[in-house]
Amino acid sequence: MNKNNLKYLIKKMTVIEKIGQITQLSTSFFDVSGVKATGTASRMNITNEQKWNIGSVLGKLDANKMLTIQQEYLKHNRLGIPLLFMTDVVHGYKTIFPVPLALSCTWDVNMVEKVARVSAKESSSAGYHVTFSPMVDVVRDPRWGRVMESFGEDKLLNGDFGAAMVRGYQQNDLKHPESIISCVKHFAGYGASEAGRDYNTVDISEWSLRNDYFPPFEKALNAGAKMIMAAFNTLNGVPCTANKWLLGDLLRNEWNFEGAIISDWGAVKELLKHGVAENVSDATLNTLKSGLNIEMMTTAFFEAIPELIEKNEMIEKYLDEAVEYVLNLKLELGLFEDPFRGVSEQREEENILHPNNRNIARKVARKSMVLLKNDGMLPLFKHEKIALIGPYAQDKSLLGPWSIDGNYQDVVSIYDGLVKKGAYVHTLDELTYHTIADNQISAAKELVRKSDKVVLALGESEEMSGEAGSIADIGLPSSQLHLLNEVAKCGKPITLVLINGRPLDLVDVVPKVNAILEAWFPGVEGGNAIADIVMGDYNPAGKLTMSFPYRVGQIPIYYNHQNTGRPKEELLNEPRYKSQYLDIPNEPLYPFGYGLSFTKFKYGSISLSSNKMTKDEQITVDIQITNQGSIPGTETVQLYIQDRIAEVARPIKELASYQQVQLQPGESKTVTFSINEQMLRYPHTNHQVVSDPGEFIIYVGPDSSVEESARIILSE
Amino acid sequence: MNKNNLKYLIKKMTVIEKIGQITQLSTSFFDVSGVKATGTASRMNITNEQKWNIGSVLGKLDANKMLTIQQEYLKHNRLGIPLLFMTDVVHGYKTIFPVPLALSCTWDVNMVEKVARVSAKESSSAGYHVTFSPMVDVVRDPRWGRVMESFGEDKLLNGDFGAAMVRGYQQNDLKHPESIISCVKHFAGYGASEAGRDYNTVDISEWSLRNDYFPPFEKALNAGAKMIMAAFNTLNGVPCTANKWLLGDLLRNEWNFEGAIISDWGAVKELLKHGVAENVSDATLNTLKSGLNIEMMTTAFFEAIPELIEKNEMIEKYLDEAVEYVLNLKLELGLFEDPFRGVSEQREEENILHPNNRNIARKVARKSMVLLKNDGMLPLFKHEKIALIGPYAQDKSLLGPWSIDGNYQDVVSIYDGLVKKGAYVHTLDELTYHTIADNQISAAKELVRKSDKVVLALGESEEMSGEAGSIADIGLPSSQLHLLNEVAKCGKPITLVLINGRPLDLVDVVPKVNAILEAWFPGVEGGNAIADIVMGDYNPAGKLTMSFPYRVGQIPIYYNHQNTGRPKEELLNEPRYKSQYLDIPNEPLYPFGYGLSFTKFKYGSISLSSNKMTKDEQITVDIQITNQGSIPGTETVQLYIQDRIAEVARPIKELASYQQVQLQPGESKTVTFSINEQMLRYPHTNHQVVSDPGEFIIYVGPDSSVEESARIILSE
Repeated sequence: MNKNNLKYLIKKMTVIEKIGQITQLSTSFFDVSGVKATGTASRMNITNEQKWNIGSVLGKLDANKMLTIQQEYLKHNRLGIPLLFMTDVVHGYKTIFPVPLALSCTWDVNMVEKVARVSAKESSSAGYHVTFSPMVDVVRDPRWGRVMESFGEDKLLNGDFGAAMVRGYQQNDLKHPESIISCVKHFAGYGASEAGRDYNTVDISEWSLRNDYFPPFEKALNAGAKMIMAAFNTLNGVPCTANKWLLGDLLRNEWNFEGAIISDWGAVKELLKHGVAENVSDATLNTLKSGLNIEMMTTAFFEAIPELIEKNEMIEKYLDEAVEYVLNLKLELGLFEDPFRGVSEQREEENILHPNNRNIARKVARKSMVLLKNDGMLPLFKHEKIALIGPYAQDKSLLGPWSIDGNYQDVVSIYDGLVKKGAYVHTLDELTYHTIADNQISAAKELVRKSDKVVLALGESEEMSGEAGSIADIGLPSSQLHLLNEVAKCGKPITLVLINGRPLDLVDVVPKVNAILEAWFPGVEGGNAIADIVMGDYNPAGKLTMSFPYRVGQIPIYYNHQNTGRPKEELLNEPRYKSQYLDIPNEPLYPFGYGLSFTKFKYGSISLSSNKMTKDEQITVDIQITNQGSIPGTETVQLYIQDRIAEVARPIKELASYQQVQLQPGESKTVTFSINEQMLRYPHTNHQVVSDPGEFIIYVGPDSSVEESARIILSE
Repeated sequence: MNKNNLKYLIKKMTVIEKIGQITQLSTSFFDVSGVKATGTASRMNITNEQKWNIGSVLGKLDANKMLTIQQEYLKHNRLGIPLLFMTDVVHGYKTIFPVPLALSCTWDVNMVEKVARVSAKESSSAGYHVTFSPMVDVVRDPRWGRVMESFGEDKLLNGDFGAAMVRGYQQNDLKHPESIISCVKHFAGYGASEAGRDYNTVDISEWSLRNDYFPPFEKALNAGAKMIMAAFNTLNGVPCTANKWLLGDLLRNEWNFEGAIISDWGAVKELLKHGVAENVSDATLNTLKSGLNIEMMTTAFFEAIPELIEKNEMIEKYLDEAVEYVLNLKLELGLFEDPFRGVSEQREEENILHPNNRNIARKVARKSMVLLKNDGMLPLFKHEKIALIGPYAQDKSLLGPWSIDGNYQDVVSIYDGLVKKGAYVHTLDELTYHTIADNQISAAKELVRKSDKVVLALGESEEMSGEAGSIADIGLPSSQLHLLNEVAKCGKPITLVLINGRPLDLVDVVPKVNAILEAWFPGVEGGNAIADIVMGDYNPAGKLTMSFPYRVGQIPIYYNHQNTGRPKEELLNEPRYKSQYLDIPNEPLYPFGYGLSFTKFKYGSISLSSNKMTKDEQITVDIQITNQGSIPGTETVQLYIQDRIAEVARPIKELASYQQVQLQPGESKTVTFSINEQMLRYPHTNHQVVSDPGEFIIYVGPDSSVEESARIILSE
């Protein structure tokens, strides 16, 4: 089979066979083990003819199930076109890694590529061909539950990590049995859901889309992603699912994307709720015309296309195009040659939760954790009697949202991690997340009084985060705040370990504890990774990729904002008339890029190869970093650039590059960055991405609050 | 002098004379009473030649001062072109009315036109020619301090009230000595300042600008407004002050605006802070090219234009155009014939704070107040001993922001209002807004225990609202919440009277009080107006024009939002995957349009003249409203329409019309609305404002939470 044959194959297909290819339903439809279709599936009136022509399925799988379904399917499919199996392997299949927001806090693109590689290995052996990952939505609103699935507020990081995951999943070799197709999501603007409420309205100017929201998608697609998912939301009034400007003009015509475009779950029929389609037929017509190729989890296409074809001769053309995009995925995966490629129980056994995988999971998890505060309390010593208290003390729900194939029994809890490490730790019976009884508080205080130090393991339950996990008040649940306040009264030093999926409002918490470790949802090795840090076997190196707001009333907050015409910094003559809040600072509690270490890094002064360059030259920036402490450590050195004067208001600074350096105690290393003209470009009002000659300010430092380091000139 | 003569006059002008005309500086420059220029003015290096050619001034004035300045100016101005006097008469000159947000809560356009009429009468007699009012920025974020200056979240109301004020100021007869020119502001998008922080970045799609933000400006300009002010903010990257698309392409070319475009205070030089101009020369060039006509309160034009003219022959053309717009204002006002038109101390004495004006102020104030809660406690009786407690008990700072010419000694305080009404009221020494001492709390409780009922007068100080008055946590100040909680412990019935400029977070307050009267910043007659309501001499009728959020984490919130593809209303099969918060409702605490009365109105069923219409027909909607209580009352009946299926996602409902009806006890009246095709139009993605044939849902009721009343069909 090759690309030319595909067109020939399409010519042979009936209308039902074609619609089937562009319809995706639940794996449970094909559960031939006697289990009936469940949930939505059971309520659909799918004929047998339709069923055996469905092009792809979505749902939980293992090798045995996949092989059974594919065999049975091929017995029934007239043209022998294999079924495509898709899923949400978002941060691991069985070896669950930290959630993507945590992954990005490693600032380690190679490591995250490995995460995707392991995910592909495990999930391909179980029969998956496509994963709906990565999400590269820029996010600025921690109320939105899906920030845990993003790489944070910066477009460069979203692009870099998105591309890394695409490479990890696809390996630039889709025929390889351990490769799976990466479906980038959600196109576009989903991360800006109004008021942080999931699925809500999105309104962004085209200029801002091109500046801030599109670049990560371009980078992930340039890395070879074969699929893209249209977002649930409306974008400037038009649902992305049926947005011709977005899917047609931009994605196909301007960017020349040649992969398949899939809807999000049920989104085609949701056009009726959006109020842009009167009925399923309208919804189908709108989506097909707009360039969507696959309908996920509903049957609008089956219901509407046969009749539409009779009324509109363009429909079969749209249909054929969509079918070709789908068949091409199967072609590129080599499914026509081997519909069972790479799937076997033996590969499953060899791959899944292999010690190497767990080892990577542990390394990534500890590298993703961010030390927000440490007055010297951490690390703890083995002779210290530790009271481990809180809902997450023993709970194994450390996997986080979007870990559908993960199993809690595979998780190392915080308590288990500490015990394995030989810590002198005591804990209590399990606490819940939203109700802590008075006798439980008393027991906690009793334990604390008998201990040397306290580790409080608090946070959000898994249900408080992820899809549809929007929260208006993003603090810790009040019962846990009460526990913290009561424990604090005992006067023992407290380390707060946070398990959560979003930046939290911690302003009232910080003064009450001695150390804070933001551990996110850390995955199967979470307890080991936390123990590695808390007990001092690993020196934390994670840096935030999303600002922690001072208060929820500061949202949206992000480091790369515009200066405004009245920046707060200049209060001299007019103390009032500045862009500021009267009751809280403008600055976040913890800025983008921030994270502490057990050691201390000193930044030397910056040295430039030149302070001028033409468009064809580049400037190298050297800076010496010194480990001034007594233990080895890793520092992520960040380079920010500000375009001082431009056609439009540019960010006060923007991440341009970053490098990690490992330093032994007392060691110094010089970190070198290159600045070229391409790094200075931005989309102008005419949408051309070019640079403006003139002055640029360079900032090199440990986080986004760094002050000016130097200035350079780009000449005409 | 006529329009043709203007061009001739311009030909005679020197470059300095021309630049002067398009420069606006402080009135204090011309303070010939011996007082030196103050503030910014004193730091400017203005030559005498420049000074006597300045085209307009901004600042506090009275007739004597104006006459002196104008006489002196005309002695020095070579061509005898009179000086133009501008100011911020926003809600009254000396007779201060409620703040605009409160004015809009009257839902009484005629009354607000009278407010502007009185403002024009008083301020014209004192020498003002132009006021920077109305502001018609649609606002959805109560953190922003300037929401007090807006007519709320709805575009229809902003347009209606904006147009009413333009008519009131200008009277369609600028030659009339009691007319002043209306400068509509802030063009555009200022109300959407990001994160509710004043002067902050604004990003709105062009589609949404045309849908939601531009219509009030179009309506105010169609009412004849002769000036418009460019907003401080960037709009999609470009500061409005130098936004050619906004000022040139849209305002001049598409809308054919022929008045003058002025910057906001100092905004031309702020282009440097925005990072779109390297220096004053660039800033000047950008603004002139973009179509700005007047620079406010800085001297970029004086500094830069002479040199720019030598380098660029287009500059003098831009300059001449701008000068003509300014001279035309003077021409239309009749200043060339009489530079002292309408200004006299006699007119001042006759007009200012005339009992008729105060009477209007009292009527408007009480009509603007919104009864948010009443469990039957209100109105109070004269035999009841009332404890009046709180920072606003006796404070006369009821004027609110933007009342620069108002005087506190003219204000009737709440205490005075109640006393004059003959209420049996006791109060305490004055309390402050942010600190209430323990002994003050004790004294308050002592007084409460000796009283029958409590009136708590709490709120925001004037400084907490208005320009640069952004607040992240929009509740009452914590000291006042503490006072409320302590007073509530006494167990006496509490009426909460709120003085403030924005919707507040009241969710924890509501259960603790028996009645809440939202009195806003009510102006000079505030205390009388509050007493009228509290003591039952006036039955409140105000309705909110801005949603009161449930919590600050719900912002932005507004009634006319889109439905989304997963509306919360339909939780049947998928309780989680809906657009919702996990911790609070989607709905505001008090919705747009909401407000109680001392009586009860019953809405009958709706009756349509037809349920179908063509584009040339109209449908009348009748509904019977009955006063079921025992006192007369006024009800604002609201008509909302939803376009069920459209090219883009339309609001779940949108205010289409409103009418006020006065009903005696037991009386019924039929309210009739007309629906025509024009009311069904909206901007499509191609920017054409047309209607889509099909089904529309009609809602008639007392506020925006009303449920469906009927459906109509617009045929092709």
